[in-house]
Amino acid sequence: MVFAIAGATGAVGREMLRELEESDLPVAGLRLLASERSAGSKLRFRSTEVEVEPLRPEAFAGVQVALFSAGAERSLLFAPCAVEHGAVVIDNSSAFRMDPRVPLVVPEVNPAECERHQGIIANPNCSTIQLVLPVKVLVDAVGVERLVVSTYQSASGAGQSGIEELLLETRRFLDGESPRARIFAHPLPFEVVPQIGEFSSSGFSQEEIKMIQETRKILGLPDLQVAATCVRVPVIRGHSESVTVDLEREIAVEEVRRRFASMPGLVVQDEPARNNYPLARVAQGRRETFVGRIRKDLDRARTLHFWVVSDNLLKGAATNAVQIAQQLACRRLVRSLATDPR
Amino acid sequence: MVFAIAGATGAVGREMLRELEESDLPVAGLRLLASERSAGSKLRFRSTEVEVEPLRPEAFAGVQVALFSAGAERSLLFAPCAVEHGAVVIDNSSAFRMDPRVPLVVPEVNPAECERHQGIIANPNCSTIQLVLPVKVLVDAVGVERLVVSTYQSASGAGQSGIEELLLETRRFLDGESPRARIFAHPLPFEVVPQIGEFSSSGFSQEEIKMIQETRKILGLPDLQVAATCVRVPVIRGHSESVTVDLEREIAVEEVRRRFASMPGLVVQDEPARNNYPLARVAQGRRETFVGRIRKDLDRARTLHFWVVSDNLLKGAATNAVQIAQQLACRRLVRSLATDPR
Repeated sequence: MVFAIAGATGAVGREMLRELEESDLPVAGLRLLASERSAGSKLRFRSTEVEVEPLRPEAFAGVQVALFSAGAERSLLFAPCAVEHGAVVIDNSSAFRMDPRVPLVVPEVNPAECERHQGIIANPNCSTIQLVLPVKVLVDAVGVERLVVSTYQSASGAGQSGIEELLLETRRFLDGESPRARIFAHPLPFEVVPQIGEFSSSGFSQEEIKMIQETRKILGLPDLQVAATCVRVPVIRGHSESVTVDLEREIAVEEVRRRFASMPGLVVQDEPARNNYPLARVAQGRRETFVGRIRKDLDRARTLHFWVVSDNLLKGAATNAVQIAQQLACRRLVRSLATDPR
Repeated sequence: MVFAIAGATGAVGREMLRELEESDLPVAGLRLLASERSAGSKLRFRSTEVEVEPLRPEAFAGVQVALFSAGAERSLLFAPCAVEHGAVVIDNSSAFRMDPRVPLVVPEVNPAECERHQGIIANPNCSTIQLVLPVKVLVDAVGVERLVVSTYQSASGAGQSGIEELLLETRRFLDGESPRARIFAHPLPFEVVPQIGEFSSSGFSQEEIKMIQETRKILGLPDLQVAATCVRVPVIRGHSESVTVDLEREIAVEEVRRRFASMPGLVVQDEPARNNYPLARVAQGRRETFVGRIRKDLDRARTLHFWVVSDNLLKGAATNAVQIAQQLACRRLVRSLATDPR
């Protein structure tokens, strides 16, 4: 299979390259695409050096699977070109996620959705992917009425420049200077900022609306009640979430732990007596999503609370995208090179 | 009125001294009490230098109001001595808060509770004080069924040594070393830690149980449904909270804003279009509690979400304690120096 990565030099693009490298996918060819500025640099893939080419429509000739992480604008512009060339696009941007013709896939949750693709499959938002893993388990076990989520999202959600701003401005703050903000809405060092994206007239931010809408679409539950408060925190990498779930039927916490532990991609880390629960620093570099602090509400028998952490650049982006590529491969949903586009 | 501050050299004790200095209370005398280690040092109060004395039972002779912020153990040990000497104790520790004989007071919410004191009045937990200000408004306006809170609590909640650990370990991390934890359960630099205090068998932490129980007691609503997830974040000073409230009756967001703005001590900072909402850095050094991101749930007409920030060392501790002292003064609840203890 011939792959392309659009946005190969970004924080997620680099992880896509590494995930592809470490996957068992039969990579017969690989094109690394990025802005003109990054073109000409070289990135290692297995034993070869691959030169980064400019992201242009003709770059997709002969490509079967194109992983996109170059921002929504470039996805809107170039994903249709890739599809025209016969590639299946797995797009990490928000450009196509809520398009009813486009599957929005977390492979552990709704893999069969891949089957109905028309050239583009959307990779959900990072904070949504890690949320739907445990929630899917509860939906299947006892039904879910309502979700209330507050997030603790790291600087890397804003890409490499977000990480750099956090580190640089933290240093400046410790040296007695006033921290600045270019990437974030307000300076992030030693601050939590309850804004990710612009606000809609409803008062919810873009990130919150993504979480609400995407969760419903992935779970196939258009009437699920979901509320989110999305907050940027001074963490480098890894998103954490405080989740409250109102269930349709009661379930014992031990049974929840057992079912969470059986979910592929989900790891239960829940030993409060040993101060052991998911932490962003521990989740960093891991493909799994970690869940802990699982407890029953003190007033409501059908309400659970838990804490979910995942590496937003891996399961929240690159890992999930490559897992979708694996679905395409094993479901034979990729155009073979000899035939015409679907 | 003759005052004492027990724990005068701690992060909260120093703010108590400053709040007393800036108040209109008639301070006729002041004793600053601390551990043997700190005794002998001097702190400025108005135009005089006051020497810090060791915290001992006899130090309370002649004291009318004793502000305690020296930890629960020292409160349990020394507050009864102060009461025996005729002082009214305003205790910032958790030692007496849930004692049914002890009023737990936020002056804007339940000032009349001071009247029934038997020598000790408890100052609530920092994260609870800032929560009950807006919630009280909603209780009075339309009734509240249920609260779901996720907190973003700063290092200063663990005192001066918490602040020092965060700053020192952040520097070490930026210098390429592994951050360490002595004060916090896990290293706090660039991490969020979903644990404040030990865990009970229910899976809730001490801090979460405080928030649940104290909120009910202050509001006088023993059956109010409250759930909390309390999280330590790498912020120096100022606690932030994501709050979801299920109301008994519907209310327009504009009406909520108007009523919040009329609540003494509460400031509405809510202009999402201008990226203006409460932030810990802005709240630092301010006595008020700030509320913003006020919005109606997208699915539920009787559910609101908002974001509350306050300086945990001021309204969350020292300011509230001195405001209780003002209640004692204006309600004439302090023993005059000539009479016997109540």
